[in-house]
Amino acid sequence: MSDNISNDFFSSSDSVRSAHSLNHAQKVTFSEPLLLQNGSELPNVTIVYETYGTLNENKDNAILICHALSGDSHVASHDEDDDPGWWEILVGPDKMIDTNKYFVICPNVLGGCRGTTGPDSINPMTGQRYGMDFPSITIADIVEVQYLLIRHLGIERLLAVIGGSLGGLMVLDWTTRFPDRVSNAVAIAVAPRLTSQSLAFDIVARNAIQSDPHFYGGQYYDKGTGPSTGLAIARMLGHITYLSRESMTRKFDATRNVGRQLDTSFETKFSVGSYLAHQGNKFVERFDANSYLTLSMVIDTFDLGETQEERIQLLRKSMCRWLIISFSSDWLFPPFQAQEIVRTLIAVDKRVSYCNIESDCGHDAFLLENNLPLYGGLIQAFLKNGYEEHVARAQFEPMGGLSGNQRAPAHLHGTKHRIDYDGIIDLIPPQAKILDLGCGKGDLLYQLKQRGHSHLVGMEIEEQLILKCVHRGLDVLHSDINKGLKDFADKQFDFVILSKTLQTVRNVELILEEMLRVGTRVIVSFPNLGYYRFRAELNESGRAPRIDPRPGRLWYNTNDVRFLTLTDFEQFCHEKGYRIHRQIAFDTELDAVVESNPNLNADVAIVVLSRE
Amino acid sequence: MSDNISNDFFSSSDSVRSAHSLNHAQKVTFSEPLLLQNGSELPNVTIVYETYGTLNENKDNAILICHALSGDSHVASHDEDDDPGWWEILVGPDKMIDTNKYFVICPNVLGGCRGTTGPDSINPMTGQRYGMDFPSITIADIVEVQYLLIRHLGIERLLAVIGGSLGGLMVLDWTTRFPDRVSNAVAIAVAPRLTSQSLAFDIVARNAIQSDPHFYGGQYYDKGTGPSTGLAIARMLGHITYLSRESMTRKFDATRNVGRQLDTSFETKFSVGSYLAHQGNKFVERFDANSYLTLSMVIDTFDLGETQEERIQLLRKSMCRWLIISFSSDWLFPPFQAQEIVRTLIAVDKRVSYCNIESDCGHDAFLLENNLPLYGGLIQAFLKNGYEEHVARAQFEPMGGLSGNQRAPAHLHGTKHRIDYDGIIDLIPPQAKILDLGCGKGDLLYQLKQRGHSHLVGMEIEEQLILKCVHRGLDVLHSDINKGLKDFADKQFDFVILSKTLQTVRNVELILEEMLRVGTRVIVSFPNLGYYRFRAELNESGRAPRIDPRPGRLWYNTNDVRFLTLTDFEQFCHEKGYRIHRQIAFDTELDAVVESNPNLNADVAIVVLSRE
Repeated sequence: MSDNISNDFFSSSDSVRSAHSLNHAQKVTFSEPLLLQNGSELPNVTIVYETYGTLNENKDNAILICHALSGDSHVASHDEDDDPGWWEILVGPDKMIDTNKYFVICPNVLGGCRGTTGPDSINPMTGQRYGMDFPSITIADIVEVQYLLIRHLGIERLLAVIGGSLGGLMVLDWTTRFPDRVSNAVAIAVAPRLTSQSLAFDIVARNAIQSDPHFYGGQYYDKGTGPSTGLAIARMLGHITYLSRESMTRKFDATRNVGRQLDTSFETKFSVGSYLAHQGNKFVERFDANSYLTLSMVIDTFDLGETQEERIQLLRKSMCRWLIISFSSDWLFPPFQAQEIVRTLIAVDKRVSYCNIESDCGHDAFLLENNLPLYGGLIQAFLKNGYEEHVARAQFEPMGGLSGNQRAPAHLHGTKHRIDYDGIIDLIPPQAKILDLGCGKGDLLYQLKQRGHSHLVGMEIEEQLILKCVHRGLDVLHSDINKGLKDFADKQFDFVILSKTLQTVRNVELILEEMLRVGTRVIVSFPNLGYYRFRAELNESGRAPRIDPRPGRLWYNTNDVRFLTLTDFEQFCHEKGYRIHRQIAFDTELDAVVESNPNLNADVAIVVLSRE
Repeated sequence: MSDNISNDFFSSSDSVRSAHSLNHAQKVTFSEPLLLQNGSELPNVTIVYETYGTLNENKDNAILICHALSGDSHVASHDEDDDPGWWEILVGPDKMIDTNKYFVICPNVLGGCRGTTGPDSINPMTGQRYGMDFPSITIADIVEVQYLLIRHLGIERLLAVIGGSLGGLMVLDWTTRFPDRVSNAVAIAVAPRLTSQSLAFDIVARNAIQSDPHFYGGQYYDKGTGPSTGLAIARMLGHITYLSRESMTRKFDATRNVGRQLDTSFETKFSVGSYLAHQGNKFVERFDANSYLTLSMVIDTFDLGETQEERIQLLRKSMCRWLIISFSSDWLFPPFQAQEIVRTLIAVDKRVSYCNIESDCGHDAFLLENNLPLYGGLIQAFLKNGYEEHVARAQFEPMGGLSGNQRAPAHLHGTKHRIDYDGIIDLIPPQAKILDLGCGKGDLLYQLKQRGHSHLVGMEIEEQLILKCVHRGLDVLHSDINKGLKDFADKQFDFVILSKTLQTVRNVELILEEMLRVGTRVIVSFPNLGYYRFRAELNESGRAPRIDPRPGRLWYNTNDVRFLTLTDFEQFCHEKGYRIHRQIAFDTELDAVVESNPNLNADVAIVVLSRE
């Protein structure tokens, strides 16, 4: 087996993190004591950080990037001779986080071992390394130290804070600890707190380190050897949780029984065993066991609150726009947990977009190229629109006065005319809060936005359509409407819209109940099977009516699975006790409103409903 | 916190395994050398086992139960004073594995540490314990030793071999190593081989044991202390994989930050940490580290073959009926892997029933009461029918001559008359191989069976309907037909039937393509939207036709999502190049066959198709 293949085999998302030079790192030391959350003090604190791009005159283009457990300040290379950084694929000139445009700051975290004060730093009070005397810290302490750095750099307000995993938890903390210092937050692969399963892995990892006989209660620095076996085992376990079952199968199954030759005391019988042994051994060369213990406990004690009420109390303080991203195969920070955060933000009417990216790369997906066009594209679009609003806000212009939409590229304006959209738009008063279910690429919401509506939320199931919405500066949530609207509180919206989607919905009763729960009014549009042409198709030709107008869409492959006439719907509302406020019927072939016998003469109907 | 609550907190599926007395255990020693798969020999072998019930005169009621990694011979209690066994809920007088009826044998496995020869046994060649000199063994060696026991007990042919997890792997091996010795096989929570992810956890666990400084290369027995830290860490890791994310959340989240007082050096800060520390410490009191290494490697080296071809070569040797059970939240032996085994068995025309039980209890579900009515019910019904066939076979009667169906309880005969079933049955020649998709509780298959058809397979998505099919002695597979028929080979059946289900199917094209791939002929029946009453409903009343005849099933809640006329279907077949051999149309209201203008006069049509 050639070296190349072997190197590829051993590569991981971590490999780019492993050999960073810190030649371009800067350092600042704050000599005042730092009061920590647990009441103890650090006598001083040093921060190592790297910056990219130029802080502009208004100091409004600064982005803070927060690294994950084993990361450091080297998020990207500084020049061609520099080592690649851990987010090299995303950060740099003309990249999706464009350092020609933005000023990027990436500090090593408090408690780390790559320059910033941590357990392996000298305690000035004793002249010895802290070791286990390093105090228990929390995300809050890490963020407080980052805040010192930001102020040191003369930045009043960050354009954005961005991070994944542990870094994403920092993002969550930033938005509530310093709400007026953050305009945009991008939190990737995050959770309100770890699941008990994920927590359990961290506990086993810490037990492995702390029960290593070379741990010496954390004071191993002068012993010549440290708890490298325990740390390696912790790292092996970590690697399993960063990957997914699918990605491990892809990587290891074909060569399952082919162990690699390695200088290790760990088992190398299976290919996956060789990989784990290699990763474990490599990690102990660059990472400090006490930092690992400290930072894994930072993750484990992070808690936005057990209940939705507790989370609401916290997150309602945030004043930024939000982009939350999860990955479908991430089982360390599973998507349902990111969705809990989204649900909380929605409950307090924050502006949030969310996408659960289909990926088989597990937790590490946010560091990999596989899904870069989507997650990077979302970040890029979100930052672009956020920057425009951020600049506008800094200039004391009213929110939304210079929203990104009015400057959206011309091709986005080319929305195909739909008479039913016109009908819906005419029904909606100014200032109304709108939820559009199955919003697609945001055509209806975009038209509403252009008319000055500002409180608009879309829900969509297709990733690429979500990306288009974010490009348009719309707030859109990735969700399957067939599962209901549990993310939303009662009467959270003035109008909930389901336009030409009712006929594709499996659970009609649930969705209408849910719409009527979260909206004061509901607007539904659907094709009317009673239309005279549809009747004729069945009655005269003996064929199933072709309700789906798209070419090639016939009875066996259309998404339309509910067949109803306008009369059926009226009867349904009557039986359910729903009140019909308005009903507008269209003949879309004639592009005309139908007044007479709509159940026969209209092919599309719009109905405005409420509970009695 | 009271002791009771504390005990409940610490309880696990393992707790019943942990404190067994072996007072009723029997022992047999075979003094001849045992040749192992790897070419080495054991000078002799001792087997510890327990039996329940009475071996009958014909010796045809014997069931071998195979235990999992940390189990032993004590599968159930022998009397009221005895400790409960690890499958107490399932095995005993009048229980689902009824020891009033069956003779149950449960041996401790080779390599174990509960009496049967293993690493902690004395090596008669040296007078010392084997330790790491105990040879590498495989499932085959374990099964060979079990076979010695079965012959020792005078049993020619086992009514059944049953096991889950490691025990399930033994079941798989039994069926191919001694195919003429097994009439029925029940394999629960099994895989053709471990996923790389599951394998990785075992490797980390072994690394923890073998890098414990008290391991002494496996020769720790006379050192006063063994690798108890490493073994405890291995056990903690194991416990995480035996549970599921959901069950861990349920068990630990409410008391997340409440650590328990424990006499342990492991972390107890979080509730889940206390639990893991407790389980880890408890395990080292009763289990030998070398046995753990030996048996975990037995699991890791088990391999039915990487490819379907290899698996086919192996499993085609089996001559038994099969019942395979998986659990939806089992991520150690995930359901897709059990399905690979099912697919292999189907490919070689074995009789197999399969159910993937919806459960949030993870891998350990097969040891818990939560899903007992279903998995226990399946085993009970499978054994009942299997016993009748087994007895018949022992009496040299032709297979199927005394099948369970002819003796099925009277209530099962009360199948509602369906004229379309009559039509379908009339189309099927004797001896034809039949696959019935969406078979429900097996009404059509049961009628075919009563007419003497023997090669019948059903596919169904509802667990309770699967249980009913197994009660009727039918072979039924748990699968969603919307995902295709990838379990089946080309032209594996003479007829593939989709009766009154086409209109509920999302992906019509895929399913028909798949049916035509695996069947020489396809029989489809569906409601005809062109029926004159349906036409009148739309044309005259302006209402969506009510094709679903069940009360309360209207446009918004019917499962019927495809609307087609007979003419639509004919046109579809024409365009796809499918050949229509027969077409039978019914007016089910009149209980009559329709000859004239069926697209207008029939409400149900049966069509027999093939590829051109």
